[in-house]
Amino acid sequence: MKTYLDCLPCFVEQALRAARIATNDDKVIKQVLDEVGCMIKDTPMENTPAESGIRVYGKIREITGVADPYREIKQRHIAEARALYPELEKMVAKAKDPLLTAIRIAIAGNVIDLGINKTFNLVADIKEILIKDFAVFDYEAFKKALYNAEKVLYIGDNAGESVFDKLLIKQLNKPVKFAVRSQPIINDATMEDALASGLDEVAELIDSGSKAPGTILRHSTPEFMEVYQKADLVISKGQGNYEGLSDEDRPIFFLLKAKCPVIARDMGVQEGDIVLKGINL
Amino acid sequence: MKTYLDCLPCFVEQALRAARIATNDDKVIKQVLDEVGCMIKDTPMENTPAESGIRVYGKIREITGVADPYREIKQRHIAEARALYPELEKMVAKAKDPLLTAIRIAIAGNVIDLGINKTFNLVADIKEILIKDFAVFDYEAFKKALYNAEKVLYIGDNAGESVFDKLLIKQLNKPVKFAVRSQPIINDATMEDALASGLDEVAELIDSGSKAPGTILRHSTPEFMEVYQKADLVISKGQGNYEGLSDEDRPIFFLLKAKCPVIARDMGVQEGDIVLKGINL
Repeated sequence: MKTYLDCLPCFVEQALRAARIATNDDKVIKQVLDEVGCMIKDTPMENTPAESGIRVYGKIREITGVADPYREIKQRHIAEARALYPELEKMVAKAKDPLLTAIRIAIAGNVIDLGINKTFNLVADIKEILIKDFAVFDYEAFKKALYNAEKVLYIGDNAGESVFDKLLIKQLNKPVKFAVRSQPIINDATMEDALASGLDEVAELIDSGSKAPGTILRHSTPEFMEVYQKADLVISKGQGNYEGLSDEDRPIFFLLKAKCPVIARDMGVQEGDIVLKGINL
Repeated sequence: MKTYLDCLPCFVEQALRAARIATNDDKVIKQVLDEVGCMIKDTPMENTPAESGIRVYGKIREITGVADPYREIKQRHIAEARALYPELEKMVAKAKDPLLTAIRIAIAGNVIDLGINKTFNLVADIKEILIKDFAVFDYEAFKKALYNAEKVLYIGDNAGESVFDKLLIKQLNKPVKFAVRSQPIINDATMEDALASGLDEVAELIDSGSKAPGTILRHSTPEFMEVYQKADLVISKGQGNYEGLSDEDRPIFFLLKAKCPVIARDMGVQEGDIVLKGINL
């Protein structure tokens, strides 16, 4: 997905939010906005918004001197999600269709997105998403692909959400490689976050090579590319990964909640919709 | 009111919205955003946001070549408001407290603000505001000031809203001067809009000298300043005028709906609240 004009003011808004998390000094925050505002003119519109995220959040890091503003918040979200985990696990076990319930919970975890959302209520969001209709629901194709798969690549998104991914990965009942970002970017899950989420108990953790809040294949490591190419089933969580992979020509299943109007429009759904969308099936 | 950090991304967002109204050419819109993004670094934070509006909307005018992107929209809003006028006039006549009902309707008109709102539903908003509690309600002081007033200055805000101002001005039953912006800026009411709203039937129309989407006294004409200083009662409509007048030391009554989080915070109210607030009483 390319960058839309609507993404440009959003970069400045995101910069304000992240800079405020990194520092209380209004002068430093203003300096971040000065620089990020001027970055608009150098934004390559043909690239994905996630790619611009590297520059925007890199600038915040550079100016505030805080390498990972979201570190504590990520740890808190992981702890909150882990506290909910046993109850959700029981819910999946009791469900009529455990796989589908686990998919819904994994999508519910996708509300923990601090690039987009200012606030969210995890428990309320889970309850809503457990009964919400899907705007795109390629579930039969997903089940078929899963049934036939020997190697599954699961590309993670945010920390906290990662705990709910664990629940889904258990239901997949296949060998799964779970890909994380190479370095902290917004609240996206890194290796450290994946470990704290207990994902190593259900999947092999791999580094995607991406420093962006999304997957950008030309930045990926050769190891990741090999896994990506050889996987029988690729599950891509969240908006950032969708941005980078939506124009790819291999089969991919996207699991996400459309949280911004631009992504919603690009997917042909409404803001707030939940999606299980397969491409190139 | 000074500029808050939150205003800075909002300028870029407003620029996108206005540029899209002025042109369909994405390259031209991108150019507007390039320039407005870079303006952040030159934004004097001690000035009001309305003052920066002059530069932002001036840049849109310059780049798109469209002097008044909102012209047709303003005309449509005035026509829509005029169509509602007879019914609202009856409502005021039948009301237990006609002055208060007219105040509520004048505030309801304040939702027609294209700097802030993307969409609004005039009829629904009027219905809501007719029964909504005021967050600040200096009505007794307002009535007293009105009772004692010989000269009233009413500083207008948006086109369309201006039609509802007419309804309130009739209820004031005093000689009123109605101040308009000097030139088109967003959808703010100019002399042309005030005439199209029929305000000349109930008030003397004067030019405030302001080219901003708000009142900036140091830009005002000497004629306006004289009226402002000599008025026994000053009624200021909307956010832009509040921004410019909130730190003044003369009595002023602000009538508005707090439509953005920054104004709401500055006034100590919640976003969406309606306000009749007097200062220096």
